[in-house]
Amino acid sequence: MPLPTSTSSDQDEPDYLTIFKQIIDELSRITDHGQVAGYIPELSRIDPDKFGVHLTTVDKQHHFLGDSNEKFSIQSIAKVLSLAMAYNLMGESLWSRVSVEPAGTSFNSLVQLEHNLGIPRNPLLNAGAMIICDVLITNLEKPQEEFLKFLRQLSGNPDIDFCPRIAQSERATGYKNAALINLMKSFSNIKNDIHVVLDFYFNLCSIEMTCREVARTFLFLANNGIDPYSSHKILSSSKSKRVNAIMQLCGFYDEAGEFSFKVGLPGKSGVGGGIVAVHPGKYSIAVWSPRLNEKGNSYKGMAFLEKLTTLTHSSIF
Amino acid sequence: MPLPTSTSSDQDEPDYLTIFKQIIDELSRITDHGQVAGYIPELSRIDPDKFGVHLTTVDKQHHFLGDSNEKFSIQSIAKVLSLAMAYNLMGESLWSRVSVEPAGTSFNSLVQLEHNLGIPRNPLLNAGAMIICDVLITNLEKPQEEFLKFLRQLSGNPDIDFCPRIAQSERATGYKNAALINLMKSFSNIKNDIHVVLDFYFNLCSIEMTCREVARTFLFLANNGIDPYSSHKILSSSKSKRVNAIMQLCGFYDEAGEFSFKVGLPGKSGVGGGIVAVHPGKYSIAVWSPRLNEKGNSYKGMAFLEKLTTLTHSSIF
Amino acid sequence: MPLPTSTSSDQDEPDYLTIFKQIIDELSRITDHGQVAGYIPELSRIDPDKFGVHLTTVDKQHHFLGDSNEKFSIQSIAKVLSLAMAYNLMGESLWSRVSVEPAGTSFNSLVQLEHNLGIPRNPLLNAGAMIICDVLITNLEKPQEEFLKFLRQLSGNPDIDFCPRIAQSERATGYKNAALINLMKSFSNIKNDIHVVLDFYFNLCSIEMTCREVARTFLFLANNGIDPYSSHKILSSSKSKRVNAIMQLCGFYDEAGEFSFKVGLPGKSGVGGGIVAVHPGKYSIAVWSPRLNEKGNSYKGMAFLEKLTTLTHSSIF
Amino acid sequence: MPLPTSTSSDQDEPDYLTIFKQIIDELSRITDHGQVAGYIPELSRIDPDKFGVHLTTVDKQHHFLGDSNEKFSIQSIAKVLSLAMAYNLMGESLWSRVSVEPAGTSFNSLVQLEHNLGIPRNPLLNAGAMIICDVLITNLEKPQEEFLKFLRQLSGNPDIDFCPRIAQSERATGYKNAALINLMKSFSNIKNDIHVVLDFYFNLCSIEMTCREVARTFLFLANNGIDPYSSHKILSSSKSKRVNAIMQLCGFYDEAGEFSFKVGLPGKSGVGGGIVAVHPGKYSIAVWSPRLNEKGNSYKGMAFLEKLTTLTHSSIF
Repeated sequence: MPLPTSTSSDQDEPDYLTIFKQIIDELSRITDHGQVAGYIPELSRIDPDKFGVHLTTVDKQHHFLGDSNEKFSIQSIAKVLSLAMAYNLMGESLWSRVSVEPAGTSFNSLVQLEHNLGIPRNPLLNAGAMIICDVLITNLEKPQEEFLKFLRQLSGNPDIDFCPRIAQSERATGYKNAALINLMKSFSNIKNDIHVVLDFYFNLCSIEMTCREVARTFLFLANNGIDPYSSHKILSSSKSKRVNAIMQLCGFYDEAGEFSFKVGLPGKSGVGGGIVAVHPGKYSIAVWSPRLNEKGNSYKGMAFLEKLTTLTHSSIF
Repeated sequence: MPLPTSTSSDQDEPDYLTIFKQIIDELSRITDHGQVAGYIPELSRIDPDKFGVHLTTVDKQHHFLGDSNEKFSIQSIAKVLSLAMAYNLMGESLWSRVSVEPAGTSFNSLVQLEHNLGIPRNPLLNAGAMIICDVLITNLEKPQEEFLKFLRQLSGNPDIDFCPRIAQSERATGYKNAALINLMKSFSNIKNDIHVVLDFYFNLCSIEMTCREVARTFLFLANNGIDPYSSHKILSSSKSKRVNAIMQLCGFYDEAGEFSFKVGLPGKSGVGGGIVAVHPGKYSIAVWSPRLNEKGNSYKGMAFLEKLTTLTHSSIF
Repeated sequence: MPLPTSTSSDQDEPDYLTIFKQIIDELSRITDHGQVAGYIPELSRIDPDKFGVHLTTVDKQHHFLGDSNEKFSIQSIAKVLSLAMAYNLMGESLWSRVSVEPAGTSFNSLVQLEHNLGIPRNPLLNAGAMIICDVLITNLEKPQEEFLKFLRQLSGNPDIDFCPRIAQSERATGYKNAALINLMKSFSNIKNDIHVVLDFYFNLCSIEMTCREVARTFLFLANNGIDPYSSHKILSSSKSKRVNAIMQLCGFYDEAGEFSFKVGLPGKSGVGGGIVAVHPGKYSIAVWSPRLNEKGNSYKGMAFLEKLTTLTHSSIF
Repeated sequence: MPLPTSTSSDQDEPDYLTIFKQIIDELSRITDHGQVAGYIPELSRIDPDKFGVHLTTVDKQHHFLGDSNEKFSIQSIAKVLSLAMAYNLMGESLWSRVSVEPAGTSFNSLVQLEHNLGIPRNPLLNAGAMIICDVLITNLEKPQEEFLKFLRQLSGNPDIDFCPRIAQSERATGYKNAALINLMKSFSNIKNDIHVVLDFYFNLCSIEMTCREVARTFLFLANNGIDPYSSHKILSSSKSKRVNAIMQLCGFYDEAGEFSFKVGLPGKSGVGGGIVAVHPGKYSIAVWSPRLNEKGNSYKGMAFLEKLTTLTHSSIF
């Protein structure tokens, strides 16, 4: 893997680029047994050995390595952004529709949804993200367009868009998601037409971005809710902290504990192999490596972040 | 409740009509705390104090009382008939698609379906009945018409039909059923388009029949698979016994044990307040009383059958 | 396997011995992939190819073959007998302590017990059988001795006894059972000291009998509750039918449906490889073959009974 | 409630005592609907309106108010300390015996333990804390004495001891705990005698401490594993962060998300009404208010900490 040189400058301490290279070197000696997500053809066709990382600080420094400027399918990472938008619109009333608790083992997702009368455990689960889509549809005139606009502003890239090919691929195989939304509808916790909500949901999961764009997009969560580039207040300080708390507890499927334990930062992964993490007050970082461990999180991405927070002593704990 | 006189004759032993009257008299002294099914308007509008019973023997005797000649929504009772049709078509290969085990508590229907990788516990559960519809759609040219033809022949009434009003009512509120079928589709245990299968399923549950028609329709199961009227072999003797075994273990939602224990006959109930039961070698009987107990079975219907098998010593055990 | 000749006489119709031989011949061509129960050393040491069968009719005819006169560990089969004793003592009040519903999949036995606030689904599950022991301890002066006396009378063998070696082996590994009884105690559904109840329970499971003894012991359930040998009324006719109904729905762990479906008789199996089945009005039968299928029921025993009821048309359905 | 004056001095910023008083004033206007834990008599006899808080900084400042110098039953708070001891002894090999994932809803604790083959979801659940006791028993010569010694050093109080009255009370009603440990033993994940492990476990839960003692005891977790008083390294920096991560995700039963979300600090609650929380790099704090919300956490304690981190902007997120 030929790694392009970082062009960033002005970096204080630590020397992220050197650390990145050191970690990459260590990881190169470990066999990555992970598998690229295969449930839709669009994801399985990716080169499994891609690797990119981009870290950006609240004072707008950039540190990056590898395929950090190549687009990948961010998948569930987008759920944090739709959550931020809905939370800003609804305030604390949002939590009557979805809880903020970790999900427990995945094997009983449906029974928990049934037990909790159609209230998902948190907004980063598939079921919870559908509730967020439903809320946005109810409260915005053109929800999908406004969401894209939000993303384009935060990422600094006006071309960010849904990927129809991936959305269609998800839609064609999304029976488990259809089961979840119908179950919630049976408890009256979906207010809009099921197909309209699923259309938004599958589009949401289809977005493609680069590591650079993801890192920049999430920077407001490292900066008390304010985007350092536009100085716009995306979320209040309190809401920004709370979104981080949700990522910390719920961002990694059935491996949230493992990630908190080893990495010690709030973050969110996607089955496209991307992971975003946030160090409040310091930086946001995006890593991309398509091979997933058995829990569905990027194998090398998690290992990279574990080594990074160890070497830079930047766990929040 | 004015009870029309039975016009049957030739009855040997026991004197069913006298016994019916005696039981009705006893039951009239008990308050029926049951509630008419309210989940769809079509069912909730029924007069809750209707009561009818019709027993017909393998030698074609008829004994009946009350509103036995009035149509009611047979609902899940129809699932035994679609099962019989599919079993006859597929033979034992049917059981690779659906098991023959009782369901356990209803609170975990979804988790069991997930645990068993999309294979429903039995063909009389909603999920299992959808599998049966799916099988019939795959194997018959005009499945719904052929099913109606089957029913018209067995019941002796060429006017038996789906009730579009009830089917539409079920469809409009059937999100839990849509969740179940999508979950099975995610495990590839539904072969046809979900909407086509649900259309058949909701029609199946919409059929209206009288107690007389239900009793006559099920008589082949009391007669080793042969319809005494047409002498047609509907099922082989072995298959007929096996359908009875399935009714015995799975016919009453989460109350199959209670029914076996107290009544001691294979049977099937529906949320329209109907119950059919079969005494192999002797008779089939249909009772109708719309008030349901908390498990969803006719309160008075179950009490009637319990007293009947006690007084006539006709439990199969 | 050299089969001793049956010495029975006077048999009417069907010719059971000939049928037995025919079935044995057919089964000898099928590989028995079953495994002898290995969780306690006492059971794993048995010769896996033992096979015995003994059928006895309500008019005291005997038909038997193979190792039918050799003792084996009847294990859970004994739970029907302790149930009969407790039911006779307590009447219908017994059912406030234990339900009569099939258990559903075994994977959630503990969650069901918790969901039902410590009330086991039926008296033939381990948890339910402990409730029965608890009831007998509360209501009898010398419960274990009186239970043995009951068994000795029914079996006609005054030497029937608990097997301390097997009971000790069960006790030493019975942590799952200790978990169940403690959970029930936490819901106050165990009234006596846990160790006293477990002592009875492990003794109960340790009894050894021959096929002949088991068949004779269960004959009262084929005879409306009356032991044909002593003419004693062991249970009322109604209670006898109800115990049969419980066996039909709950006698085979997670395979009750399969057994009802294929064999069509109420029965009970044990992990020692024994199965007892009852044809009400006709006969009781005990089969023994130590290799178990994956559900814990005798592989060859179930196959034998399936063929027997097919050939003799003696399913109750 | 007469509040004693704080005697601390030298405090920089913020002025904790003033903030404490402000929060107490706000809380006094809210009705506390919580209930004192009633499952053992020893806990239910406490004055429900007690309230104490003690915050101590890594530079040994003390800020306190109310009944902060009164002993209360710290209950599950002690589980963090036994975990620290076992983690230090065993290192990362500890995690083959217990996971570090949040537990999901409490209603399925037993089924999750069964599903995970006897491996508890985390060391702060009852089941997980028993594993920790088991590990300490295996690895220490006098485990209970050494644990007390550890506590006495950290708290600075040589009189810290188990409370036999409370331990006995727990033991007498601890059937659910006995169910859990037996289930784990059945999976061979308990190595020592069940009674020995339970004895340690019930003693562990019986410890009484004051808010001041709890805050000081936990200070090493705010100081990268080093006790500021003794300068002893209790845990390595990495292990200290990881224990904090576990508290963050697993410290509040089924309300870990809620606490992270609203308070934003790692912490642990006990049913005695105590809560400890840690701000890495800054302080540890103990609050005590016996009335519990429906999830089993101190109602006023959680509200106090939520207001405190809001007013002092000290969420870690």
